[in-house]
Amino acid sequence: MNEQFGNWMRQTQATCETSLKQFLPDENTVPQQLHAAMRYATLDGGKRVRPLLVHAAGQLFDAPAALLSRAAAAVEMIHAYSLVHDDMPCMDDDALRRGKPTVHVKYDEATALLVGDALQAQAFLVLTEGEGDATARLAMLQLLARAAGSVGMCGGQAIDLASVGVALNREQLEQMHRLKTGALLRASVLLGAMCGKTLTADETAALDSYAAAIGLAFQVVDDVLDATADSATLGKTAGKDAADNKPTFVSLMGLDASRALATQLCHDAHAALGRFGDKAGLLHDLADLIVQRQA
Amino acid sequence: MNEQFGNWMRQTQATCETSLKQFLPDENTVPQQLHAAMRYATLDGGKRVRPLLVHAAGQLFDAPAALLSRAAAAVEMIHAYSLVHDDMPCMDDDALRRGKPTVHVKYDEATALLVGDALQAQAFLVLTEGEGDATARLAMLQLLARAAGSVGMCGGQAIDLASVGVALNREQLEQMHRLKTGALLRASVLLGAMCGKTLTADETAALDSYAAAIGLAFQVVDDVLDATADSATLGKTAGKDAADNKPTFVSLMGLDASRALATQLCHDAHAALGRFGDKAGLLHDLADLIVQRQA
Repeated sequence: MNEQFGNWMRQTQATCETSLKQFLPDENTVPQQLHAAMRYATLDGGKRVRPLLVHAAGQLFDAPAALLSRAAAAVEMIHAYSLVHDDMPCMDDDALRRGKPTVHVKYDEATALLVGDALQAQAFLVLTEGEGDATARLAMLQLLARAAGSVGMCGGQAIDLASVGVALNREQLEQMHRLKTGALLRASVLLGAMCGKTLTADETAALDSYAAAIGLAFQVVDDVLDATADSATLGKTAGKDAADNKPTFVSLMGLDASRALATQLCHDAHAALGRFGDKAGLLHDLADLIVQRQA
Repeated sequence: MNEQFGNWMRQTQATCETSLKQFLPDENTVPQQLHAAMRYATLDGGKRVRPLLVHAAGQLFDAPAALLSRAAAAVEMIHAYSLVHDDMPCMDDDALRRGKPTVHVKYDEATALLVGDALQAQAFLVLTEGEGDATARLAMLQLLARAAGSVGMCGGQAIDLASVGVALNREQLEQMHRLKTGALLRASVLLGAMCGKTLTADETAALDSYAAAIGLAFQVVDDVLDATADSATLGKTAGKDAADNKPTFVSLMGLDASRALATQLCHDAHAALGRFGDKAGLLHDLADLIVQRQA
């Protein structure tokens, strides 16, 4: 990682933390425990990949910082809510997340359910508030709602649930991930760009290609890490997919071919950015980061 | 109930059913089971009180029917998702809803969790689509997000959870219901009116008074029915609040005083509508309906 990109990343993660703190109700607001749990689930953790994508894509069109912060907080709240619900006993039943007890372990299941529900509403709320063109914001809200819902992230989770113990082929595995994690990563890239201008069809198509490549790469690397890293490094339970008999790229293709696929997808992502020139530097480096990450 | 109002109600309920069918993804769209379960949770059931409030409030300012249908569908989807999550074992653990098995009984808990999550996203999506002024729609989305979230419905449910077995006084009980059910009923009234025009502070205040009165009346009547009606009439498990040791207006004030309170609140609701004249006829009759309902 070059130093300039590293500095930008740390600064953007700090900005994201600050704005999440600002955009979440504080712990003194009634009901206090729900708000404390919402903050616990969202703050002080994670790599903030989605906010980084929002801000990096915003650079393409010199998007205003205030609107980018709202878009970044909104996608991160959607992501945080999905983790809280995903970790619940009726889903993945996971006790550890970002190195901390999951919300239903730290509080209880009912609180975890409500935390996720309230975080989703808060994500949409954040994008309706603040300054900015109403038509553009409406388009952003529509994109986020579609990416979060039944033909996006929730739909991917439903397919994931239905695929436990089922022998998926690579195409089916990719489709599942395209919805489960890909939809929100794509939304992050497009939302960041939309903070700057109304996108042309060509711009949308190029960013879609980039997002599709990094989205898939992200999941392939996740599977590689799940098979090779330990829980302490990951901040979550390692080896869980194999133990749960879930199909992964590693189980389907093996480790070496999975790593080669991730590298190829990184090249594809870089190629998709060609039309944007130097303005796409941050998105370019983020693709590298996603493929080279160790946790 | 007068015949004209009865006709309007049945016609509006049918309109609502039609638009919900249209605004929910169909059962042939991937993932099919999730979409089937979302439709199961939402269609063919319920009194559609919130959609009725949206349409009745829309009459105040001659709001366009297409926008009213979207607003009505959005609040009903938020309501439907909240019932699905509320019925789950970690919350109220209820097996019967609207006379049918609850979603986690008919399908499973993980599906119920995802159905609720996806319905919430769908609610916001529906309000971003279609024709209409972007600034007005942004204001409507903001109102709905706030009403659904941690300082609205979800917040009320958190307070409700924390109050099991706790001796609430009447003020605390009212505050809980103001959030848990009142926030979305208020949103229904305001959204319907906002489909017609941008509201003045005075108009908002009058509609707030109306909504506060019917919201509280709705809950008082719910408690009376829970204590007096049978499960077959209610379409859900009767006597559940008492069995769960939850505070209710009936346990706090007794049956007669609860019934008298409901009647008083109905008068308050009618009084709040004075400034709107004949245009408020449907809202007037809806207040009667809420207090006189038998299920």
